[in-house]
Amino acid sequence: MGVDPGLVATGYGCLETRPGGVAVVDAGVISTPADERLEARLQEIHDAVRNLLEKHAPALLVVEDLYAEYTFPRTAILMGHARGVIYLAAAERGVAVLALAPAEVKRAITANGAATKAQVQRGVQARLGLPEAPRPSHVADSLSLALIGMSRVLGRL
Amino acid sequence: MGVDPGLVATGYGCLETRPGGVAVVDAGVISTPADERLEARLQEIHDAVRNLLEKHAPALLVVEDLYAEYTFPRTAILMGHARGVIYLAAAERGVAVLALAPAEVKRAITANGAATKAQVQRGVQARLGLPEAPRPSHVADSLSLALIGMSRVLGRL
Repeated sequence: MGVDPGLVATGYGCLETRPGGVAVVDAGVISTPADERLEARLQEIHDAVRNLLEKHAPALLVVEDLYAEYTFPRTAILMGHARGVIYLAAAERGVAVLALAPAEVKRAITANGAATKAQVQRGVQARLGLPEAPRPSHVADSLSLALIGMSRVLGRL
Repeated sequence: MGVDPGLVATGYGCLETRPGGVAVVDAGVISTPADERLEARLQEIHDAVRNLLEKHAPALLVVEDLYAEYTFPRTAILMGHARGVIYLAAAERGVAVLALAPAEVKRAITANGAATKAQVQRGVQARLGLPEAPRPSHVADSLSLALIGMSRVLGRL
């Protein structure tokens, strides 16, 4: 299962290998209202991810690794809050966490380490044979993480 | 109870009003080993803070508010992970969180909004009538947060 943490919107995508290939088991976005207290929003994200981990029991939780430079440090620190409670949910459920470099995931999905959101969406659509590109981009990002995490575990894509 | 979140060391200090004045009920540092996985470290911080909130049932959890500029964004984002699981522990225990501007706390404790760590330590020592200055600075910071948070609630220091 891939997760793209964010206080406003956390994307998730859960994949499964089936005889015919890789299938999307579940995907979506956990949104929290901006007018709610930070602690309540973090609890909603934590509980939603924990419920997904209970429901799907994934072998691995895959997230983007932190990178060196952030344009908006305050936004990045708030993303860190969301990422923290997601890591906690994984620890509580005994699910291993794998953090992948964003450029590595983009390169594996689109052959371009600096791909746009739209390119990642189309790349994920093609890889998974979906009728439409996954929306919003948080979902495509989490599915791309799940795909590359899966290829790491299985040794192939 | 004041908390100074950090992945390596999270300081905490719990105060209580008594007939003679304000007393330190508990204070210390939650440390996690750097060679441990991030999710395990976050779980240790979360569980330790949750246990403290259960044990002392404080009226308020007081933390430093985020500020605009951070010298080390990556370190600040990891601090955000710790802060996130601490906020979550407060939500789970139904304890209200108050975030105070660091400069406001320093000014209230030392009359200087840009006070050094040592000045905060001496200020907290004086305010609480402690035989020694609290160490490490994480503990002094968390006690200063608890002190100013308490004064906000009680309307005086």
